[in-house]
Amino acid sequence: MTATHTTFDRNALDLTFSGLENSQFLRACLRQSTTYTPLWLMRQAGRYLPEYRATRERAGSFMGLATNRDFATEVTLQPLERYPLDAAILFSDILTVPDAMGLGLSFAQGEGPRFAHRMDSEAAVDGLEVPDMERLRYVFDAVSSIRAALKQPDGRARVPLIGFSGSPWTLACYMVEGAGSDDYRLVKTMMYARPDLMHRILAVNAQAVVAYLNAQIDAGAQAVMIFDSWGGVLADQAFQTFSLAYMAQVLAGLKRTGPGGEIIPRIVFTKGGGLWLQDLAALDCEVLGLDWTVNLGAARRAVGGAAGGPGKALQGNIDPNVLFAPPAQIAQEVERVLQSFGPPHQGPGSGPTHIFNLGHGISQFTPPDHVAALVEAVHSQSRAMRN
Amino acid sequence: MTATHTTFDRNALDLTFSGLENSQFLRACLRQSTTYTPLWLMRQAGRYLPEYRATRERAGSFMGLATNRDFATEVTLQPLERYPLDAAILFSDILTVPDAMGLGLSFAQGEGPRFAHRMDSEAAVDGLEVPDMERLRYVFDAVSSIRAALKQPDGRARVPLIGFSGSPWTLACYMVEGAGSDDYRLVKTMMYARPDLMHRILAVNAQAVVAYLNAQIDAGAQAVMIFDSWGGVLADQAFQTFSLAYMAQVLAGLKRTGPGGEIIPRIVFTKGGGLWLQDLAALDCEVLGLDWTVNLGAARRAVGGAAGGPGKALQGNIDPNVLFAPPAQIAQEVERVLQSFGPPHQGPGSGPTHIFNLGHGISQFTPPDHVAALVEAVHSQSRAMRN
Repeated sequence: MTATHTTFDRNALDLTFSGLENSQFLRACLRQSTTYTPLWLMRQAGRYLPEYRATRERAGSFMGLATNRDFATEVTLQPLERYPLDAAILFSDILTVPDAMGLGLSFAQGEGPRFAHRMDSEAAVDGLEVPDMERLRYVFDAVSSIRAALKQPDGRARVPLIGFSGSPWTLACYMVEGAGSDDYRLVKTMMYARPDLMHRILAVNAQAVVAYLNAQIDAGAQAVMIFDSWGGVLADQAFQTFSLAYMAQVLAGLKRTGPGGEIIPRIVFTKGGGLWLQDLAALDCEVLGLDWTVNLGAARRAVGGAAGGPGKALQGNIDPNVLFAPPAQIAQEVERVLQSFGPPHQGPGSGPTHIFNLGHGISQFTPPDHVAALVEAVHSQSRAMRN
Repeated sequence: MTATHTTFDRNALDLTFSGLENSQFLRACLRQSTTYTPLWLMRQAGRYLPEYRATRERAGSFMGLATNRDFATEVTLQPLERYPLDAAILFSDILTVPDAMGLGLSFAQGEGPRFAHRMDSEAAVDGLEVPDMERLRYVFDAVSSIRAALKQPDGRARVPLIGFSGSPWTLACYMVEGAGSDDYRLVKTMMYARPDLMHRILAVNAQAVVAYLNAQIDAGAQAVMIFDSWGGVLADQAFQTFSLAYMAQVLAGLKRTGPGGEIIPRIVFTKGGGLWLQDLAALDCEVLGLDWTVNLGAARRAVGGAAGGPGKALQGNIDPNVLFAPPAQIAQEVERVLQSFGPPHQGPGSGPTHIFNLGHGISQFTPPDHVAALVEAVHSQSRAMRN
């Protein structure tokens, strides 16, 4: 695996940023200097917001919400109404792809996702196919609808929209387990006992994810993120074989530019993948997501690159549980994370950049005003670090 | 924190090994060469064994089993009757200590542990005290009873007995959450919002763990292990402050030798702690446990030391889910782990050593004959590597 540390030309960068009122997030993704550290939050449109719960109530169910472009647009924009976040992320679920493969996704009240059918036999695996993307039309329609809703009177977008997918391995976990798991017994049994079946699932998933993300890009997604939520449960070597290699396949198939010729940054986030940072750095993507176990300064030194040279932008990595502490402690932990990354890259050309985020999705129990405190602390402190 | 890379004198080593029929495990702990790679399995006395389930049935409950020295002795020896394991480990639970603090431990059928009282207020934390070790007499009695049961007709022990405790942080997780958790919200809220309270709990826990492990050593434990099962859920810096520092306190308080002057090796296992290997290597202990995410060869190069010099023995690290694959695949994965560690240290003096283990407790669903295949593969392959 070889990394292609593309240096983008100034015209392409200008084109990418020009349509945006706030281009801080995309600038940081492409290792360009920013006036402060941009931030967004994984699962920022979600249950911790009362307005989200109200919309979900009207939609009747999670899938009723996710499959309706108007509802999806509404909830995607909700956190942006409350907080000056630097990016929007499509409201959807990583399991829409296996659902479109015919596995029958549902969300029971108070429980996690569940599939009516799971990959529990050789016949089931043999029958698996890349789904017709028309079955996921509702997702691409939501992307277009959100892009339209983000448009300001002057024609520019408030912030960019991030599209996303689960990684091939993470999708396979749910497809084999049929639901969430705390030991990954079924999927790992298949992996160790019948690696041939696991490779077949992963190959189909990788093709499906390519088609899915490319269709999101065509519909208007301005960056895409691969959530390798369960890569970190794998053993060393198994991670490289069963997760990393298929993410590399996905990245090789992704469109590099959107419909207007703008650059589409690609973010890879392996939760619990800090030990494999060097492997992840070899991926052909622009940004690596990190969870809170990783020392940001060490990650910057290892893979963040130097000013003027190639490297990865880093995204993360505060513990979402920090948001249960009072605002003063939140500000203190924000300072710790910003200081850990260290002095911001300034001036022209590429350099090490940081996109602030949580190290995992925000908890449904988070007090919304604590999120406001976090956003304010990140923006004000990171502006101060540049003065 | 400074490591004391003690080099043991030959007389002390001879004394330590002389009372044992099988001293392979203790030799590997003290970085002495072995004729094969010794192994034991976390939770080797447990629910995957039908004979364990029968004894637990007779005992009526988990606590009925754990608090009765005869039952505890019986189940501790059960896996040794089936498999040629190289160490016994006390059958008990890490939560006996908080139970003795008055938190009221129970295990509901089919659920995990639960405390009747939890550390949910400043008053509760203020009232916390190191428990009278007499309340844990049943544990020390079990240690003596197991030692007696391990004695052969010639007076030597079949294998050494490992004692253990949860780490101060891991105990605190249960004490604050009141049960297991998947997000550690309560304990991390206290940690971020009221670090003073968290430090008070951890200080009491550290003292209690010292007293508890020293009493196990007095009763006959020949090695002790600190299970930092939840250290890996902490953020970088929080791990060092709230888990590592208190394990260092525990290690500083532990007896270095047993009642007969034998050396008592100390094992520290932070599940998910692979990113902090250099921090862990600075601990004053002999062995570091590793989970399956860690590359054993890299760990050996980083902290295993060279022949003749100081370093840590390494314990681990196969994924317990490997045991759901057929024996041929199990043997293949064993080979991968042994090869990852690399050429065994041979000859006199100290050198890098490996104790084979799982990277986590064995699953209750494991087929017992697959465990036999694992043990056979480790012993035969590691013998072959030495020829």
